[in-house]
Amino acid sequence: MPDETRSFEDFRPGEVIPLGTKTVSRDEIVAFARVYDPQPMHLDDAAARETMLGGLGASGWHTIGMFMRLLCDNLLLKSHSLGSPGIDRVRWLRPVRPGDVLTAVTEVVETRASRSRPGLGIVQFRSTVTNAAGEPVMTMENPILFACRETAR
Amino acid sequence: MPDETRSFEDFRPGEVIPLGTKTVSRDEIVAFARVYDPQPMHLDDAAARETMLGGLGASGWHTIGMFMRLLCDNLLLKSHSLGSPGIDRVRWLRPVRPGDVLTAVTEVVETRASRSRPGLGIVQFRSTVTNAAGEPVMTMENPILFACRETAR
Repeated sequence: MPDETRSFEDFRPGEVIPLGTKTVSRDEIVAFARVYDPQPMHLDDAAARETMLGGLGASGWHTIGMFMRLLCDNLLLKSHSLGSPGIDRVRWLRPVRPGDVLTAVTEVVETRASRSRPGLGIVQFRSTVTNAAGEPVMTMENPILFACRETAR
Repeated sequence: MPDETRSFEDFRPGEVIPLGTKTVSRDEIVAFARVYDPQPMHLDDAAARETMLGGLGASGWHTIGMFMRLLCDNLLLKSHSLGSPGIDRVRWLRPVRPGDVLTAVTEVVETRASRSRPGLGIVQFRSTVTNAAGEPVMTMENPILFACRETAR
């Protein structure tokens, strides 16, 4: 059986990788916010109506968390991923509401072999999360390191 | 009694705002990873030793979540914050381990009144999370919107 685990060489600039969907529940929004981002707009309907969100919405960090889970399940855990040095840019474009069905995709922007660390390469991704109306709610740009095929064996 | 809630006008470039400390537990690292970032390096000691982290370490998103909670408790919930359009840059510099005591500070880099939306302003922050050895584990740059004093009344 061929090794279907992605190595650095398996990423091509321009490729768009679907990452699946996630339905957002009110309970999850509130549970995340209680621990990590206890601002009224993420916790309580009445208080949220007075905020710029105009009603209860997920913490932007929760939206990223849900995206990250999709990225793990549909790409990273099927790859020789080595982790990421950071994030270059995130934009939260629209509120994420209870009941929203989010769809995530990521595009390969650039690939380059590491000069300082032979056997691994850096893939630059641009990811988009959209709601059921097809409106983008979040974009993110970031690099991820992958082992090359020979290194991963 | 004076209003001690911070408005846009209360931020001065160069000000460094202490955000307190957070002790990281193994249970929290694993609980976060199970839901949002189920990669072996965040879930299991033995598996993590084979990774670039060299041992169990927190998801970078969990480190941000812990930072965000400190930012809420020590600044945002005592301010007329209106939310953030996104993140400009995050760098994860060192592993965050079970038992680590993290300290967070944020510096006001720039403030500017909004032209398109009178009554609010944008504050650009540069934040740093350090471990007990004083080594930075994460840096983040991002803008946050605040209501001006007159608007917030």
